[in-house]
Amino acid sequence: MKEKVVLAYSGGLDTSFCVKYLAEEKNLEIYSAIANTGGFSESELNDIETKAYELGVAKHATLDVTKRYYRRCIRYMIYGNVLKNNTYPLSVSSERIFQALAIVDYARSIGAKYIAHGSTGAGNDQIRFDLTFQVLAPDIKVIAPIRDLKLSREEEINYLKERGVVRDWTKMEYSINKGLWGTSVGGKETLTSNQTLPEEAYPSQLEKEGEETMELGFVKGELATVNNEVYDDPIEAIKKIESLGAAYAIGRDMHVGDTIIGIKGRVGFEAAAPLLIINAHRVLEKHVLTKWQMHWKEQLANWYGMFLHESQYLEPVMRDIEKFLESSQNNVTGKVIIKLKPYRFEVVGIESDHDLMSNVFGEYGEMNKAWTAQDVEGFTTIMATPMKIFNAVNKGQLELNDSDD
Amino acid sequence: MKEKVVLAYSGGLDTSFCVKYLAEEKNLEIYSAIANTGGFSESELNDIETKAYELGVAKHATLDVTKRYYRRCIRYMIYGNVLKNNTYPLSVSSERIFQALAIVDYARSIGAKYIAHGSTGAGNDQIRFDLTFQVLAPDIKVIAPIRDLKLSREEEINYLKERGVVRDWTKMEYSINKGLWGTSVGGKETLTSNQTLPEEAYPSQLEKEGEETMELGFVKGELATVNNEVYDDPIEAIKKIESLGAAYAIGRDMHVGDTIIGIKGRVGFEAAAPLLIINAHRVLEKHVLTKWQMHWKEQLANWYGMFLHESQYLEPVMRDIEKFLESSQNNVTGKVIIKLKPYRFEVVGIESDHDLMSNVFGEYGEMNKAWTAQDVEGFTTIMATPMKIFNAVNKGQLELNDSDD
Amino acid sequence: MKEKVVLAYSGGLDTSFCVKYLAEEKNLEIYSAIANTGGFSESELNDIETKAYELGVAKHATLDVTKRYYRRCIRYMIYGNVLKNNTYPLSVSSERIFQALAIVDYARSIGAKYIAHGSTGAGNDQIRFDLTFQVLAPDIKVIAPIRDLKLSREEEINYLKERGVVRDWTKMEYSINKGLWGTSVGGKETLTSNQTLPEEAYPSQLEKEGEETMELGFVKGELATVNNEVYDDPIEAIKKIESLGAAYAIGRDMHVGDTIIGIKGRVGFEAAAPLLIINAHRVLEKHVLTKWQMHWKEQLANWYGMFLHESQYLEPVMRDIEKFLESSQNNVTGKVIIKLKPYRFEVVGIESDHDLMSNVFGEYGEMNKAWTAQDVEGFTTIMATPMKIFNAVNKGQLELNDSDD
Amino acid sequence: MKEKVVLAYSGGLDTSFCVKYLAEEKNLEIYSAIANTGGFSESELNDIETKAYELGVAKHATLDVTKRYYRRCIRYMIYGNVLKNNTYPLSVSSERIFQALAIVDYARSIGAKYIAHGSTGAGNDQIRFDLTFQVLAPDIKVIAPIRDLKLSREEEINYLKERGVVRDWTKMEYSINKGLWGTSVGGKETLTSNQTLPEEAYPSQLEKEGEETMELGFVKGELATVNNEVYDDPIEAIKKIESLGAAYAIGRDMHVGDTIIGIKGRVGFEAAAPLLIINAHRVLEKHVLTKWQMHWKEQLANWYGMFLHESQYLEPVMRDIEKFLESSQNNVTGKVIIKLKPYRFEVVGIESDHDLMSNVFGEYGEMNKAWTAQDVEGFTTIMATPMKIFNAVNKGQLELNDSDD
Repeated sequence: MKEKVVLAYSGGLDTSFCVKYLAEEKNLEIYSAIANTGGFSESELNDIETKAYELGVAKHATLDVTKRYYRRCIRYMIYGNVLKNNTYPLSVSSERIFQALAIVDYARSIGAKYIAHGSTGAGNDQIRFDLTFQVLAPDIKVIAPIRDLKLSREEEINYLKERGVVRDWTKMEYSINKGLWGTSVGGKETLTSNQTLPEEAYPSQLEKEGEETMELGFVKGELATVNNEVYDDPIEAIKKIESLGAAYAIGRDMHVGDTIIGIKGRVGFEAAAPLLIINAHRVLEKHVLTKWQMHWKEQLANWYGMFLHESQYLEPVMRDIEKFLESSQNNVTGKVIIKLKPYRFEVVGIESDHDLMSNVFGEYGEMNKAWTAQDVEGFTTIMATPMKIFNAVNKGQLELNDSDD
Repeated sequence: MKEKVVLAYSGGLDTSFCVKYLAEEKNLEIYSAIANTGGFSESELNDIETKAYELGVAKHATLDVTKRYYRRCIRYMIYGNVLKNNTYPLSVSSERIFQALAIVDYARSIGAKYIAHGSTGAGNDQIRFDLTFQVLAPDIKVIAPIRDLKLSREEEINYLKERGVVRDWTKMEYSINKGLWGTSVGGKETLTSNQTLPEEAYPSQLEKEGEETMELGFVKGELATVNNEVYDDPIEAIKKIESLGAAYAIGRDMHVGDTIIGIKGRVGFEAAAPLLIINAHRVLEKHVLTKWQMHWKEQLANWYGMFLHESQYLEPVMRDIEKFLESSQNNVTGKVIIKLKPYRFEVVGIESDHDLMSNVFGEYGEMNKAWTAQDVEGFTTIMATPMKIFNAVNKGQLELNDSDD
Repeated sequence: MKEKVVLAYSGGLDTSFCVKYLAEEKNLEIYSAIANTGGFSESELNDIETKAYELGVAKHATLDVTKRYYRRCIRYMIYGNVLKNNTYPLSVSSERIFQALAIVDYARSIGAKYIAHGSTGAGNDQIRFDLTFQVLAPDIKVIAPIRDLKLSREEEINYLKERGVVRDWTKMEYSINKGLWGTSVGGKETLTSNQTLPEEAYPSQLEKEGEETMELGFVKGELATVNNEVYDDPIEAIKKIESLGAAYAIGRDMHVGDTIIGIKGRVGFEAAAPLLIINAHRVLEKHVLTKWQMHWKEQLANWYGMFLHESQYLEPVMRDIEKFLESSQNNVTGKVIIKLKPYRFEVVGIESDHDLMSNVFGEYGEMNKAWTAQDVEGFTTIMATPMKIFNAVNKGQLELNDSDD
Repeated sequence: MKEKVVLAYSGGLDTSFCVKYLAEEKNLEIYSAIANTGGFSESELNDIETKAYELGVAKHATLDVTKRYYRRCIRYMIYGNVLKNNTYPLSVSSERIFQALAIVDYARSIGAKYIAHGSTGAGNDQIRFDLTFQVLAPDIKVIAPIRDLKLSREEEINYLKERGVVRDWTKMEYSINKGLWGTSVGGKETLTSNQTLPEEAYPSQLEKEGEETMELGFVKGELATVNNEVYDDPIEAIKKIESLGAAYAIGRDMHVGDTIIGIKGRVGFEAAAPLLIINAHRVLEKHVLTKWQMHWKEQLANWYGMFLHESQYLEPVMRDIEKFLESSQNNVTGKVIIKLKPYRFEVVGIESDHDLMSNVFGEYGEMNKAWTAQDVEGFTTIMATPMKIFNAVNKGQLELNDSDD
């Protein structure tokens, strides 16, 4: 009896090659599987399944991890307003770990001895996959034929052709990865430092002119309404926001950052929903959180985003950070008003019962009921004390000298 | 002989009142002074001087601290990409301290026993002024008549009228503070949480359509060229960029944040130059700095911005942070290409001899010359070790359970 | 009918004065109360009660908040290994807030219109009390007679004598504050920078010679056993450890730090239990937590300690930090072996099922089963990449030059 | 003509094997070199040289990098009070990088094509060496025979015996590494979690009883005097302090931490000078630095220590951190008084012209000249404002409930 291998299968050239290669050269029984984190439509998934069976897999499985991906990851990225390098919502990198987790679970459930994937030796994804497999299933062996054989596309195509598999393997000008939390676009211009993607490189195109108001409602940091319509499933709310925003070509940008393997990489993306949601959520937080909650949230969330990106999602500190983030959302309930315009949006304002810019005691710049001018003078005097002492002890060291200007 | 008071004079109602009040009720000789940090034009300064003498000051001084403000503050805000709460370039708050410093220096130079200012008891500026005065000149007494007398505008106007000073004191609908590093706009909508400023509230208006390319050149983090024209004085470069950007109505936004006195405040601003410069600088840094330089810069710079805002500029840690920031700029030299469009801009890319997205050893996603697939496998294995041990010792604790999804 | 005032009463001169003063000059009905956070014995509490009634209070209440103080505060200080400025377990400062909370609750429960305390205008405690009262009971008015009247001890003594209250008010050479989490000792030497407290200034004295082994057992970060005896109540465990450690005069040190009002202060303390527990807990954590859990715990816990010290316990971020700290303790279960010696102790080691220094895969410095030398080489190569590129792009900038040595 | 290899040679079994192996099997001309960072005596160095020539090296070089190690590393560890995991002064790990740097420089200077070292595949040192070589000399090939051949001690001994090299290769019970900044002691007990090193495992032994006062003088953070004797060379001061402290068996402890390769390791050490100096320096800083200088120094210095330990010394952010640390030392000038006792020491106090615990304006706990009780009341009121608003808006959310106790 042959041993089983679970192959993370996408329908592309690399993983198609893997099906034939693993069956013929490794004599394994192939269980192809695709882990959907919300980026594939029903028809795409069906198409992938058909292709898998055409290649002769023993069984093909579609693993839906969208809900887990939202509960365990997207939710925290929203709580933390995670934008890598102040820009990138981790559109694709954050999905990989959940795909890997689904593959491990599936491999366990069918008693597979091997897991295979089609990653090359050049990117981050191989690390995200391999590391997750090693940590959670050190007993299952990983095979990455494309990486290990260092094959060219031509060699793969020929290998498949010799085995009767002839398809249109034409490489797209841009490599596009679509997910629930945004779409990455790589190629041509992203390989330079001084050019940006042309309009036509983006999957979504501008469809609307003028402007439109959008209202997002949050309950304890989670999306609850879009334009006053209640969404029980935040995933559906995200999809709705994406469709509204994409029509205005909102959320396009270019990410430049450090890859796990230590070189700088650049990638374009469009992510209308993530950008709209995070910016809305952030403005709401400015009204309902205290200064120090925002201060620490930002530091922890930046770290969370970095670790998520660098395949450290399973690090125990991530669970601790999640507890902090969750706790911080206690009062993040309210409505955010946004104006959508071609290629951009404006956060108009918020409405929340927890708005600390309340005038219970007084308004900024106005006389108020909670303190007197004399209180402020006292406050200032005490606040000045450490520097006053410092300057006295250190003989005017705090004074600026023209010579340093 | 009367004792001297230096009055921080702006030509407005409050400080005009102070001139008369200090002369008549306090029997002081008035030395009015205005500290220009780049926000006033020559004619505005002349106008202020004329008004001061009309009110009967002994002497009026215009103190130009633009250069110091740039060298000691703006420069570091650029190095640090300082945007308070990810939004606000500290357009006005950062100037106050330099105005206060100039007033102290001037008071010292003429042997004044008093410093006076027109702040009310309701805002941040009184703290910025008073604290600076207390720290650097504990021997000089501060007088803030408006705050201490809790006068209404009407009372001030009447007091002046009785003394023959009749001017148009009509309060503007919006309170506008113009400076080198941006203009703040407060009033009406900014006192709510759910409305934004109307187009006409902004001093600059959209003048151009279409799009335009702008190129900013940096040398060790400082502006050196605009559209390939060399600027020896970065202040002139800032002004140039402001005029180019303002024509596209770029750099408008709304800041919501915590005031020094602990309540939330909201203010609109337009700051084309700061937003263009900081975003350009930040993208350049993504190419030339290492991951950990960016990581620590961000934390220190956020703190720097917070302390600057909260009148802690003289805190010694600020000087230490400046040394860090300056050191980090060693390779921040290169050109940034930007596209200006109505109400927004895009950073197209950068060109720099220090670009670490270099292909000296290989490109992301391509086969390369500096490491092998096997190296990455080894790297992944070692990287997985801590979590692998953790999971083995703690009996599968890292595995996700469906029940928590 | 007279209005009620709750007076935080300690039996000392200041609060005794307050009883008479509030009754006679303010015409209030006095409800004295002492909030015990574990520092008072039964007999001390009885004595205080007796004294209160002698002064004529309407009612005296002993409020026991030891349990709350442990659950809400000490527990987190242990989780976070909180030692202010790497030294001070916040022996007294952390109690004040819980005493203030108890006073507020009591005042509410009896419908008091006023709260009074005996703080002077010179220390931190007045802020800890007043701030808590203001935040939680803005409707209750605070009276601090000693501070407001600026009375000298002599004036207070005379005022009491005139009203027939004659006691021994002799001021002790050292001001001593005993609590569950340590005892502070101030006076004489602590007012200098270059002297330390003499042996006899400490309440506890060395009683034992030689050495003794102590074993502390933790379950999820909380004390569970002392010398293998099970303690259901961690408070009792703390008291036991204190008595064992104090016999060796362990836990004495001097804290130098910034007070809330901004000047530097210095205070001696003895805190055998806190020092033993925190050091034991910390060593256990080094074995069972990951590197990054320790990294972030330390930062958050330092902040927690600072805010606790500076009367910011009620800041919402503190609750978020607590969630992080609690989550981090999931595996902090095990036994710590300590050797007690005169004036010092040594942590010998730990035993834990969660010890990550396990040899499941191999031991440091030995050949192992989880990776190969080649893996380490690959790891090193990838780890070197960013700096290798940096040095190549920047033409040897990373090389050290002798001239800078 | 043979090609040259520089061999990092220590005189031990592994590197002796390398001499013969590289000459015979690789046909290389051997240039042995030892980089002294202060841990070797003259006679030890001579002995090593003799042994090298006996093995037939073409040339042996002793590279003295003590000064560079101090200027570029120890100095900053003192500025930063670097104690890894609050315990370990990085006694050995910090030296390795400087030894590697010296080897690279030497290899360059003689035109060597190869660098060889005797590290096994099991520890951190191989990474420290290899990474440094790769970054600074990607053109020089590294050879690590012991690691690559996976040889046992017996195989090495036999190989040498066959070539006529017969020495006493008996392995010591403890592996001891002596350096300027402390001595590490590994073996037996350090491989367990629950035992500590016995007295006799430490190279230094208790020589003195009673107690002795030591005074350390710092100028801008650097050691300048020991017991009032001026030291122009801080390295000599360190050696003096080491000899004074070691006589009291001071500075022994056990470090538990994460290795670069991700497993936990444990090692004993004795480091009298580092512990005395850092603790003295830290107490001085508590008196002369502001709260926020200490806050940020600690964070940056912890990172500095971690990166130093993990062979990231060349990361550019380290240079930026050094600038911060250096700037922070501006006022760290003064004298620290310490009492040495068997196995421990006490910092008695400090004397400094920059002591901020000055009474220029007043003393903690005393009435003072710089502020009034009313100022403190005002301060408290303003400080309470954010939480007061929070509690009012959020309807008593800040109140504690008994149910959570």
